[in-house]
Amino acid sequence: MQTTQILLAQRPVGEPDAATFSTTTRSLPELEEGQVALAIRYLSLDPYMRGRLSAAKSYAAPVEIGDVMVGGTVGEVVESRFDGLAPGDMVLSYSGWQSADVVDGRHVRKLDPTLAPVTTALGVLGMPGFTAYAGLLEIGRPKEGETVVVAAATGPVGSAVGQIARIKGARAVGIAGGPTKVRALTEEFGFDAALDHRAPDFRDQLKAATPDGIDVYFENVGGGVFDAVRRRLNTYARIPVCGLVANYNLTSQPEGPDQLAGFMGQVLTQSLTIRGFIQDEFTRSHGRDFVREMGEWVASGQVRYREDVVEGLENAGAAFAGMLRGDNFGKLVVKVS
Amino acid sequence: MQTTQILLAQRPVGEPDAATFSTTTRSLPELEEGQVALAIRYLSLDPYMRGRLSAAKSYAAPVEIGDVMVGGTVGEVVESRFDGLAPGDMVLSYSGWQSADVVDGRHVRKLDPTLAPVTTALGVLGMPGFTAYAGLLEIGRPKEGETVVVAAATGPVGSAVGQIARIKGARAVGIAGGPTKVRALTEEFGFDAALDHRAPDFRDQLKAATPDGIDVYFENVGGGVFDAVRRRLNTYARIPVCGLVANYNLTSQPEGPDQLAGFMGQVLTQSLTIRGFIQDEFTRSHGRDFVREMGEWVASGQVRYREDVVEGLENAGAAFAGMLRGDNFGKLVVKVS
Repeated sequence: MQTTQILLAQRPVGEPDAATFSTTTRSLPELEEGQVALAIRYLSLDPYMRGRLSAAKSYAAPVEIGDVMVGGTVGEVVESRFDGLAPGDMVLSYSGWQSADVVDGRHVRKLDPTLAPVTTALGVLGMPGFTAYAGLLEIGRPKEGETVVVAAATGPVGSAVGQIARIKGARAVGIAGGPTKVRALTEEFGFDAALDHRAPDFRDQLKAATPDGIDVYFENVGGGVFDAVRRRLNTYARIPVCGLVANYNLTSQPEGPDQLAGFMGQVLTQSLTIRGFIQDEFTRSHGRDFVREMGEWVASGQVRYREDVVEGLENAGAAFAGMLRGDNFGKLVVKVS
Repeated sequence: MQTTQILLAQRPVGEPDAATFSTTTRSLPELEEGQVALAIRYLSLDPYMRGRLSAAKSYAAPVEIGDVMVGGTVGEVVESRFDGLAPGDMVLSYSGWQSADVVDGRHVRKLDPTLAPVTTALGVLGMPGFTAYAGLLEIGRPKEGETVVVAAATGPVGSAVGQIARIKGARAVGIAGGPTKVRALTEEFGFDAALDHRAPDFRDQLKAATPDGIDVYFENVGGGVFDAVRRRLNTYARIPVCGLVANYNLTSQPEGPDQLAGFMGQVLTQSLTIRGFIQDEFTRSHGRDFVREMGEWVASGQVRYREDVVEGLENAGAAFAGMLRGDNFGKLVVKVS
C-alpha cells in the first residue's frame, strides 16, 4: 500500500507558506502481527501544530525537517492483523498528514459512527472539546452568574467553552473575527454576547458586554484581545492559558515599553490566577467525566459544534496557514480521501 | 491623652523621602463605653505600605493626604472601658503610625507575652508569617524533594517561606542582598543554598544552586531576580505572587522590548501557575492551622526569626524608605515609646 505524505520541508519564519511543506509518496511495510493498515479519511488541523514547526523549546518535541507532519486522524481499517479490529472499522489514530498508515492496533481507538459523526472524535468529542472542558472546569471554575470571556469563539475550543460556561450558569461572551462568525456566536452557539475583535470600537464593545467585569478569561489568542480583556478583569479572576495563536507567527519580541512588570503588578493587586495547560495533564482526572458529560450534551443539543471541511490532503498546508489567520469557521478538518 | 501622628504629606514619585510625611500632635477623645486607650509600643513597617502611598487602584484604598499612615501595632492598654481588657494588657491593633490611640475593644487581639515576645505578633506569628504560610502551602504546594526559591529571604516572609519549605521536605534556596544576609540564610535560617542577587555572576550562581530547576518561586521582589528565576522554572512550576518590591518605586514602564507575550508563551508551554494573593483571603481557611502549627514551629525552634528594631516613631519614614531599598535585616519594627 502507498501513502502520500506531507513533510516539513523548512521551518517557517513567521507565517507558514508553500515552501514550508513538501509532498512525497512511499510504500508502507507489510503488516506484522498486531498491526492494522489504515486508509486515512480525515486529518485534524489544530493551532498547536504551529509549535511543532519551530525548533524552540516547547511542551513537545518539534517535527524534524523531512519528517511527516504530526496530527490526529480518523482512518478506516483496510487490513487487520489485530484482534478486535476488522476492515471497515473506523478508528482514531495519530497518523499525521498522510493518506495511509500502518499502526499498532493498541494505539488506535475504535469509533462508533452510530453515536456521532466520526469527525467529532477530532473536535467536540476529541482533543479540542476536552481542552475546553478540562481547562474551563478545572482552572476557570466558573460560578453561577459570573462572566466568562473566550476568543476564537467559533473554533472547536472556544465554542465549547462558551456553551459549557452557560450550562454552568455563567454569562458567556464570545469574541471572533468578522460579522458572520459574530452572528453565529449568539444565534448558533447561544452566547449571551458576541464581539468582533476587528471592530474599531472593540474596547468599548467589550466594556458594554461585560458590565460586571470578567471573572474567567479562557485565553486562546493573546495579542490585542488579551490586552483589552485584562483591563476588565475582576479580583480573583482566573485565566486558563490554552493558546496564543496571535503570537505564534511572531518573529521577535514586540516593541516596548515592557508591560511584564505592570502585568505582574496586576496579578498581585487583583489576586489573579494565570495557569497554562495542555489538555493531556487532565486526562486521568477528567477524561471519563468528559466522555460521559460531553457525549450527553452533544447528543441533547446543549453543546453544538461546527466543522469546516477542506477537501484533499494537498490543501492541508494552505488551510493550516489560513487557520492561523482565522480564515476557517469551526473545527478545521481535511477530508483526505 | 496626646498622640503624635505621622501623616501622609504628599504622594511620592519614586522613592518616599522626607517630604512624603509630616508629624502632628493631637488630643485623643475621652473613652466611651467599650473602648480602650492604648500607648503604642511597636509599629510594624511592611512593603505593602508603599501601595497605600499611591492613588493607583490596588487591593486596598490609598491613604489620603493628611491622614495618619496605616500599619499594624502592638499597644499597651492604659485605660479600659471594655470588659476583658485591663491596664497593662498588651494588644495587637491597627493603629497606624502614631504613639497612642483610642479603639473599640472588640477590634484588638490580646497578646500573651509569656508565649512569645509581643513583637512576633507583627512578624513571624502575625501577618508576614501568615503570608508565608498560606501562600507557600496553598499556592506553592511544595512536594518533598522539590526546589523552592524565595527572594528577600531574610525578611519576615522570605525567611518563613524557606523554613516551612524545608519542614515540608523541599530544598530551599534563598536570595538576599549582601554577604551578611546571605550568610545568615544558611547559618541562621537553615536554607540549603543562598545567593546574593547583587553578585555579578548571580545567574550562574542561581543555575548552580538549582540543578533540578525550580518548582516553586515565592515572588516577593520582581525585577531582575524574577527575570533570572523564570529561566530556571520547571514544567508545572507554581509562583505565588506576594510582593514586587523592586517595582514599587517605578515611575514608568520599563523600556522595551515588551516581554509580556514571551512570558505568556512560557506560561503556556510550561503549564505554569501564577497566582497573586493577599493573605487575608486565606484567614478563614488557614488561620487556625497557622496559629497552631507556626506557634509550635517557633516554640520548638524549627522556624527562627530575626527582628530589626528602629528606635523612635520619628525615624519611621526613613526606616520605611530604607526597607524598600533592602537596608533592613529581618522584620522591621519601630519601637515607639
